Amino acid sequence: MKIIAISGSLREGSFNTKLLHCARKLASEDLTLEVVRLNDIPLYNGDHDTADSKPEAVLQLAEKLRQAEGILICTPEYNYSISGVLKNAIDWLSRVDGQPFNGKPVGIMGAAAGQIGTARAQYHLRQVLVGLNPRVMSRPEFFMGAVHTKFDDDGNLSDADSEKFLKSYLAAFADWVRGQTRR
Amino acid sequence: MKIIAISGSLREGSFNTKLLHCARKLASEDLTLEVVRLNDIPLYNGDHDTADSKPEAVLQLAEKLRQAEGILICTPEYNYSISGVLKNAIDWLSRVDGQPFNGKPVGIMGAAAGQIGTARAQYHLRQVLVGLNPRVMSRPEFFMGAVHTKFDDDGNLSDADSEKFLKSYLAAFADWVRGQTRR
Amino acid sequence: MKIIAISGSLREGSFNTKLLHCARKLASEDLTLEVVRLNDIPLYNGDHDTADSKPEAVLQLAEKLRQAEGILICTPEYNYSISGVLKNAIDWLSRVDGQPFNGKPVGIMGAAAGQIGTARAQYHLRQVLVGLNPRVMSRPEFFMGAVHTKFDDDGNLSDADSEKFLKSYLAAFADWVRGQTRR
Amino acid sequence: MKIIAISGSLREGSFNTKLLHCARKLASEDLTLEVVRLNDIPLYNGDHDTADSKPEAVLQLAEKLRQAEGILICTPEYNYSISGVLKNAIDWLSRVDGQPFNGKPVGIMGAAAGQIGTARAQYHLRQVLVGLNPRVMSRPEFFMGAVHTKFDDDGNLSDADSEKFLKSYLAAFADWVRGQTRR
Repeated sequence: MKIIAISGSLREGSFNTKLLHCARKLASEDLTLEVVRLNDIPLYNGDHDTADSKPEAVLQLAEKLRQAEGILICTPEYNYSISGVLKNAIDWLSRVDGQPFNGKPVGIMGAAAGQIGTARAQYHLRQVLVGLNPRVMSRPEFFMGAVHTKFDDDGNLSDADSEKFLKSYLAAFADWVRGQTRR
Repeated sequence: MKIIAISGSLREGSFNTKLLHCARKLASEDLTLEVVRLNDIPLYNGDHDTADSKPEAVLQLAEKLRQAEGILICTPEYNYSISGVLKNAIDWLSRVDGQPFNGKPVGIMGAAAGQIGTARAQYHLRQVLVGLNPRVMSRPEFFMGAVHTKFDDDGNLSDADSEKFLKSYLAAFADWVRGQTRR
Repeated sequence: MKIIAISGSLREGSFNTKLLHCARKLASEDLTLEVVRLNDIPLYNGDHDTADSKPEAVLQLAEKLRQAEGILICTPEYNYSISGVLKNAIDWLSRVDGQPFNGKPVGIMGAAAGQIGTARAQYHLRQVLVGLNPRVMSRPEFFMGAVHTKFDDDGNLSDADSEKFLKSYLAAFADWVRGQTRR
Repeated sequence: MKIIAISGSLREGSFNTKLLHCARKLASEDLTLEVVRLNDIPLYNGDHDTADSKPEAVLQLAEKLRQAEGILICTPEYNYSISGVLKNAIDWLSRVDGQPFNGKPVGIMGAAAGQIGTARAQYHLRQVLVGLNPRVMSRPEFFMGAVHTKFDDDGNLSDADSEKFLKSYLAAFADWVRGQTRR
């Protein structure tokens, strides 16, 4: 199963992007993750949202998502919510023909320095997605706190518990995608 | 009192921007509104968020806000939350020295086509602001639904009830700013 | 398919209870609704939440829900959220063995006097349910505003549009229950 | 200054109630806390919400709150939100003449076993309170996780960091109450 994994952070060394690359390496054989960053998606402007003028980067991302069996989103928490960057990409994606979240299995992850580990962001994201009609997995949820202590210099998880939990999360997500797709 | 009025929409003909211009014209003499759009604020990228590299547009907006007695935000509702554009600007503003929301009186408004009139967006915005420590006015709240029926061709409010409510909202906001500043 | 329909209001003449009775009458043949009120569920007190002391009314409601193919919740909006009464019942239900929301298809409705029509309440309810792992339908959503103008003296919907929408909502919910159960 | 401190949990040995008693003992001389539990507040029922029939316990609590200079709420997190018990009390309090939250300084605290430490509950509570027009302190926020490890057998805080933070929180709250009252 092909999964598009979206990082909500643009920073080159982003922990959320790193975490998705770890997920890509740790996922079982039947789950192929492609990590996607949002650096090319411009700010949403209704004046550029016409039949002929939607940004190419938006159309390409939408097509990628439509082709995938599932979507995994890994969001930082900025100001008690998802990043403006991630919200902005969703704003564009919600406006394309063949809106790509519709009916699609979705998993939500997040990593942050503090203890709350993006919980505030993740419930905002759940509300944001309701109108787009994906199938968002409820449980397990994935909150990673103290993220700056969890990776080694090569970007791999140095924390054994985190690695174990990530594996079990990915197994549950694979089941979720399979179950929702089979219907 | 000088108020910076931020529109959460980039579109040239945005109803939220129009509404703020109406507020500018309808405000009583002691309230001077400057309407600000966010078209020049780039997407937040931690790699550009260093002591020397913050975007000029962000620094200028932050300075404008610091100089003001109060901030009025008018947000559209995209996907059951504030626009990514507005969230993104707040993400940048939260990262400057002398974070400009700190202790500042804030009013929240919103306009949308549907009946719910940005309520979903406004409570997300309230949560987003908590950590930045502004003084957000609780009541009255300003929700404008069916916004496409409320303006004339010159961008003035054609709906008398809306105009009346906007005036009373602005009077309450002026009181709020005065009360919070006097402390 | 057997559906338990929970009203979040205790009042005898509650509009939310009325709306569920209308749903019961208007549902297609394959959907049997039983309307349940929460008047007998006591306030949650951890001192009474032991293996031997859970209130009989809680255990009975939990068993009813477990036996059903789906759950429909109709909530008023009190203070920008669900009623304390509904939240309290969920707090009890989350604590019984064989937690009854687990894996169960759920639909959310709400009716209120104002225009916002319980939107603020419904997104709180969606967050409340995440940890209990039900399968909550995303769309369509059911918001009824100006509820005091929508019923006749016999408790039937006098508003034709509302009746039509309720029917289409129930048809979508029946599909949702069927789809989730078949997996 | 007289502060009413409301615990959102009914359990005799509740950690949230304990925490408020610690706050009572640790508060500086100019802050007198009275800890209030909600065990006598019945479930909200509109049929009992008439001019003559409001429960005595509700009227007494409302009067206590009106007499106070500020209100401190300490909430557990049940099902990713505040307790139904606390929400129910607020539902009643919002319906009395001379609604007691109006204009009143409010502080929000919370304690829970998990790491997230009632964050999900506290933002729900902030939304719940918006329409009641209190002056809710933004910062500092008080989240206590792993609460079962923080008290000794006499109900005092055994964790020095928590005690220190509680003291600084109470000092900030005293400033907040003073500042809002002086206006």
